[in-house]
Amino acid sequence: MAAVNKTAHAFDKTRLDALLNRRFFYAPAFEIYGGVAGLYDYGPPGSSLQANILAEWRRHFIVEESMLELDTTIMTPSPVFEASGHVARFADWMVKDTGNGEVLRADHLVKNVLEARLEGDREARGVAAQPVAPGPADKKKKKQVKSTAVKLEDAVVAEYDSILAQLDNYSGPELGGLMRTHKITNPSSGNPVGEPQQFNLMFASSIGPTGQHPGFLRPETAQGHFLNFSRLLEFNNGRVPFASAQIGRAFRNEISPRAGLLRVREFTMAEIEHFVDPLDKSHPRFSEVADVELVLLDKYVQAAGQTTIRRMTVGAAVKEGVIANETLGYFVARIHAFLLRIGVDGKRLRFRQHMANEMAHYATDCWDAEIQNSVGGWTECVGCADRAAYDLTVHAEKTGQALVVRQALKEPVVEERAVAEWDKKVLGKTFKADAGLVTKTVEALDEAGLMRLKGELAQGPATIKSPDGKEFTLQPEVLTIDRKTFKTSVREYTPNVIEPSFGIGRILYCLLEHSFWSREQDVERGVLSLPAVVAPTKVLIVPLSSRAEFDPLVKEVSLRLRKAGVHARVDDSNTSIGKRYARNDELGTPFGVTLDFASVQNRTMTLRERDTMDQRIGSIDDVIATVTELVLGAIDWPEACQRLPAYDGVQAVD
Amino acid sequence: MAAVNKTAHAFDKTRLDALLNRRFFYAPAFEIYGGVAGLYDYGPPGSSLQANILAEWRRHFIVEESMLELDTTIMTPSPVFEASGHVARFADWMVKDTGNGEVLRADHLVKNVLEARLEGDREARGVAAQPVAPGPADKKKKKQVKSTAVKLEDAVVAEYDSILAQLDNYSGPELGGLMRTHKITNPSSGNPVGEPQQFNLMFASSIGPTGQHPGFLRPETAQGHFLNFSRLLEFNNGRVPFASAQIGRAFRNEISPRAGLLRVREFTMAEIEHFVDPLDKSHPRFSEVADVELVLLDKYVQAAGQTTIRRMTVGAAVKEGVIANETLGYFVARIHAFLLRIGVDGKRLRFRQHMANEMAHYATDCWDAEIQNSVGGWTECVGCADRAAYDLTVHAEKTGQALVVRQALKEPVVEERAVAEWDKKVLGKTFKADAGLVTKTVEALDEAGLMRLKGELAQGPATIKSPDGKEFTLQPEVLTIDRKTFKTSVREYTPNVIEPSFGIGRILYCLLEHSFWSREQDVERGVLSLPAVVAPTKVLIVPLSSRAEFDPLVKEVSLRLRKAGVHARVDDSNTSIGKRYARNDELGTPFGVTLDFASVQNRTMTLRERDTMDQRIGSIDDVIATVTELVLGAIDWPEACQRLPAYDGVQAVD
Repeated sequence: MAAVNKTAHAFDKTRLDALLNRRFFYAPAFEIYGGVAGLYDYGPPGSSLQANILAEWRRHFIVEESMLELDTTIMTPSPVFEASGHVARFADWMVKDTGNGEVLRADHLVKNVLEARLEGDREARGVAAQPVAPGPADKKKKKQVKSTAVKLEDAVVAEYDSILAQLDNYSGPELGGLMRTHKITNPSSGNPVGEPQQFNLMFASSIGPTGQHPGFLRPETAQGHFLNFSRLLEFNNGRVPFASAQIGRAFRNEISPRAGLLRVREFTMAEIEHFVDPLDKSHPRFSEVADVELVLLDKYVQAAGQTTIRRMTVGAAVKEGVIANETLGYFVARIHAFLLRIGVDGKRLRFRQHMANEMAHYATDCWDAEIQNSVGGWTECVGCADRAAYDLTVHAEKTGQALVVRQALKEPVVEERAVAEWDKKVLGKTFKADAGLVTKTVEALDEAGLMRLKGELAQGPATIKSPDGKEFTLQPEVLTIDRKTFKTSVREYTPNVIEPSFGIGRILYCLLEHSFWSREQDVERGVLSLPAVVAPTKVLIVPLSSRAEFDPLVKEVSLRLRKAGVHARVDDSNTSIGKRYARNDELGTPFGVTLDFASVQNRTMTLRERDTMDQRIGSIDDVIATVTELVLGAIDWPEACQRLPAYDGVQAVD
Repeated sequence: MAAVNKTAHAFDKTRLDALLNRRFFYAPAFEIYGGVAGLYDYGPPGSSLQANILAEWRRHFIVEESMLELDTTIMTPSPVFEASGHVARFADWMVKDTGNGEVLRADHLVKNVLEARLEGDREARGVAAQPVAPGPADKKKKKQVKSTAVKLEDAVVAEYDSILAQLDNYSGPELGGLMRTHKITNPSSGNPVGEPQQFNLMFASSIGPTGQHPGFLRPETAQGHFLNFSRLLEFNNGRVPFASAQIGRAFRNEISPRAGLLRVREFTMAEIEHFVDPLDKSHPRFSEVADVELVLLDKYVQAAGQTTIRRMTVGAAVKEGVIANETLGYFVARIHAFLLRIGVDGKRLRFRQHMANEMAHYATDCWDAEIQNSVGGWTECVGCADRAAYDLTVHAEKTGQALVVRQALKEPVVEERAVAEWDKKVLGKTFKADAGLVTKTVEALDEAGLMRLKGELAQGPATIKSPDGKEFTLQPEVLTIDRKTFKTSVREYTPNVIEPSFGIGRILYCLLEHSFWSREQDVERGVLSLPAVVAPTKVLIVPLSSRAEFDPLVKEVSLRLRKAGVHARVDDSNTSIGKRYARNDELGTPFGVTLDFASVQNRTMTLRERDTMDQRIGSIDDVIATVTELVLGAIDWPEACQRLPAYDGVQAVD
């Protein structure tokens, strides 16, 4: 077996981009119309890579855990997002260049300009550029604004550092204040910018022909799970915990997206909503993952202004309270396993806990799987949030539907509490149309309030005040208040939700970066070392030439691989075998088989491994059997080499 | 083996709907918010059924034919749909009830009202209701408007018949005229309706924060293929024919959708664009399908006012010119095979050719796979259109990009033609800024025009007129016109496109209707006889009870089936085995295995087949091996019965 040196050449983003574009992994959408920022089309290898990642996701999560899969609607009527809080809060602050009308995200502008000034200060002081800090402030590694060497006063440096550390805390007007105080203008034009304005990130539309039903494209798939909660619970025979899962598109009208697949306006998500008893967040399979070691960056470390990671097992993290509960810990470990399985580099993967000020409006705790890459530094690719009972509660309130679990108690709960009993006749006669308001007002009282009212009524008429301030006088004969005994045999509760949410495009891009390298002997020869499980094509079938004498063998091998469930492609184009292999190294195809004159005569076939370029030879039967096991992951390349002797022919050289 | 009578009870749509709702195959989206017409969510069995249909589609088309898969953007900037013709023409005519504001589709209103009057006439004449005519006018079998027995004059009957026969031919103003002439009002209110107005069916939105980029949600995935044509061609090494394929969402803002999954505002499509040389529409694999017999309803039969179907082989249909070419015929046969494979009833499937007046604006020939169902009668579920060079041509014109194939010719083509050669110096001096316009005007002349100009110039100055009407006088010295010989070794052409386009939701609904029946002994016991290849769950694992002693076996059997790639679910709920099986008959689960005390003692397991309710018994190993082969389609139930003896135990009775 040949030795492989994947790090002979430093990572070169330009080369990777050229490869991805040339091989049509993805490209700007509507390119022939000039393109639109933040919208991308996936070509054949990108689509296959994405489909394979999703198939593995489905196997790893949905099948393995018997989750309930959903496919819900993208176009959503406005009331749903009014209840969920998205209409009011799913927004960014933007500013407009007063000269050319360019629109910029307000927080990004402040950040980029102040960081550039600090960088300029360091240059002026002759201090080397700081090493990449892995903290949350470092989401954008690429410099957005060019720095110039201008020294700042020490107090100014301290002030800028302080602003940057709490950037997520500022409101729009505060960001506007900062821009005025620190004379922040649009770096690309030098023009001043206007006051920050809130811009909702949801795409708006209108449902039906009358324009009476405003709608939005969903910015996440989650609401579709919550709205169907009662049906899902019933489908699961009323039992909790259970999880629903959905793969689908979501849309965010980003203000000015410029980070390739990392920040887009339309994207594929895969989301799980795991519904769990708030009093019991243990997980039955936790023991299976307890020993998994993770790289963690918790909120306390970050709050102390540090970025020291901790390596610990999931079991220890939950035991020490670093991760809040078993279910959250279980999913963090499962996310970790999934990302490694599809080929993400474990050394460039960490889990970072959200600090209180950056949490989404619905979350009570959240861990992000962050993957390091050259565009966004440490980038959130999976979020794992505890949304508590937020969503089910707001939808239940808005619709009046009970979104709860009813659990039969083994032992009924007996309790004594005060209740009001009304004389309906007197009530109606006294209060007429207000009768309902009166009973509601009394019944809203707590135990102490009811007992106080009972005391007042014992002495004569009592006065109560409804929530909207109306006063009513109650005569003692209209109601009796007494303590009674209640027996409850059903517990009713709103389940909590643990939500692992995957941005597939971000994962896919990071995976491409981690898989890319160049051959030691020729930097121009790029390779994508994608694992077979996600590689767009598993086996390349290469006839020596497109001559008809190879056709029957090509057909036979294609058919047999297809029957074995191995996705193969034939490349019979009129170029050398070496060029054809090089092209497929760029596509990440892990194995290749060559059919030549020996194949026709002796029914032998060579087998080539992508990374090592090793070639082995065997009978067509043996090679098909071996490559099938390789693709399924049943054996690895060293094992395959023990089965098939090395090939030292000259025809299929690279 | 037990005999099964699936037709003991007539099809009952109400029972099917109740089943689909109860088992959460799908449900109105945003149900707890009151729902929105034409939007549906798929629950766990519906999502799995759809995912399995799509997986089989991918295998049958993309993998089998090495198509190039794409995943393109839904949100589309307006210029794309301006070029494609959708902004101008993807519209329906609607009318508004002048009283209550209800909006109706104009053509549906005319159709429903006139059909009800004709029906009333037949009742008044004592003529039995006509048998269901399978023609195109019969898209809606369900009556939308109640008829009353009123006799019409013979001339009126003839006029109504004539209007209905050419309904697709009327413009909006003509539909308005018909409504006035025939006093057509809104049947549900009795109010008159206003003038028909055009309503574009695309959902509109706006991209980016400034509102300057109007966009639409795509109403089909096709444009994403066309816009990427050059990249696809390059990916395919410049060779034609090839096909791209895409599965994805599309959106149509239907005016008033009321036909369940058959007419929705958001849906999943699967589309193929097969790019082919317009001079050679043969297909290399045509011989494989030539003997497939199809049920055809061609345009000539329909134009003659008849609905006589013809049974013929694809080979004969292409030979006789009924189907235009081999590629179209090949895809019609492949569509046919796909629909049968997933379980559509072949007796309720036909292919109907579009008549000239109903063809979409881009198509030159089109065959619909129509599937009969109780809601829409014969309903278009797959379209197979020859879009010719329409789309590539309009996008090339709009963008100025060449969307063509360049084919090296074996023999260069030699031709002689007239060309103008300019004296650039004189040209610039004489016409200055207009020089470009002048050369363009001359070069736009055809052969005859150029030779005429040559003749004029031979006699002195000549005058030409630019396309915008400007006149220029050419002096003889500014150009020379001569016939020259040209040799072309490359042929450049715009390929034609054959497009099979699948509405997945429609297919899924028809499949559910065709699969549904009730047990002979109990009409309440519904069964969905879905083939294993698409069934949401393949095997139900039923432990006798949820007692812990069965847990190890349940785990073992689950794990082994999962490893064999068989999707199984455990049902250990606290109801009888019979009830659990009945529930899974409704879910279409084809096989069930029962674990009882004998399993614990002897490692035996029973195997039940859904349709026959037959039960067999064998060792756990044998049953797992048998059910795996059953699910993969390697053996059928009679073969399984030869391997495993009948079970006559009493525990697992239904």
